[in-house]
Amino acid sequence: MTAGPRLFSILRQGAFLIASIHTALDDSQLLRFQEDLITMIGRDRARGVVIDVAALDVLDSFATSTLRDIGDMARLRGAATVVVGIQPDVAIAMVRLGLRTGVLETALDLEEGLALLGDRVAGSPAGRR
Amino acid sequence: MTAGPRLFSILRQGAFLIASIHTALDDSQLLRFQEDLITMIGRDRARGVVIDVAALDVLDSFATSTLRDIGDMARLRGAATVVVGIQPDVAIAMVRLGLRTGVLETALDLEEGLALLGDRVAGSPAGRR
Repeated sequence: MTAGPRLFSILRQGAFLIASIHTALDDSQLLRFQEDLITMIGRDRARGVVIDVAALDVLDSFATSTLRDIGDMARLRGAATVVVGIQPDVAIAMVRLGLRTGVLETALDLEEGLALLGDRVAGSPAGRR
Repeated sequence: MTAGPRLFSILRQGAFLIASIHTALDDSQLLRFQEDLITMIGRDRARGVVIDVAALDVLDSFATSTLRDIGDMARLRGAATVVVGIQPDVAIAMVRLGLRTGVLETALDLEEGLALLGDRVAGSPAGRR
């Protein structure tokens, strides 16, 4: 599960992590993405995570539940999560297929996502650092 | 599904889209409305959508579920949705038929709907633009 090239990147920007998925990930790659991200939240003391899925033209049930899980896991580690860049066709398909993102927050793009996180974190004690 | 005259209009007003349905739409027209609206949210970077159904004297189960889906899809694209202008007879019939709008927000008319959206978006970072 740790073999092969990384098909995603996780960059730090201030108190936030920006995770971009570059191409469709298979299930084991999605789990690797999940583990790397949750580990990095602690290492970088991140207060928030933006997951950019703009490159994806499909979000199936496993990917959706993995994203939902990441949101829950990140919350347990003290970080908020926003998913950005869901394409129109992907949004339509997800709703028609009944895939739910639960309490996961969503925003149009990276810019909106970072603004939303900034707002969330400003409302918490760590935002005043 | 893209043939024929448009029986709805989608106009931009600031950070919001105002979508008016002019006459009863059949199922394929409703789906066209749905797709156009979700696409325009990204193109216009809309933070909210008002759907005006004041011209409709019937909202059947397909129309109701389409509106509910639009609310879910718009949320995935980072926009809030408010349905306005549900006529008294329509509201009575919807409840008697057990048609549910789920988490979709509703307001009396366009003015109230825009005020509600303004309130929702003011609570989010983009509202400060």
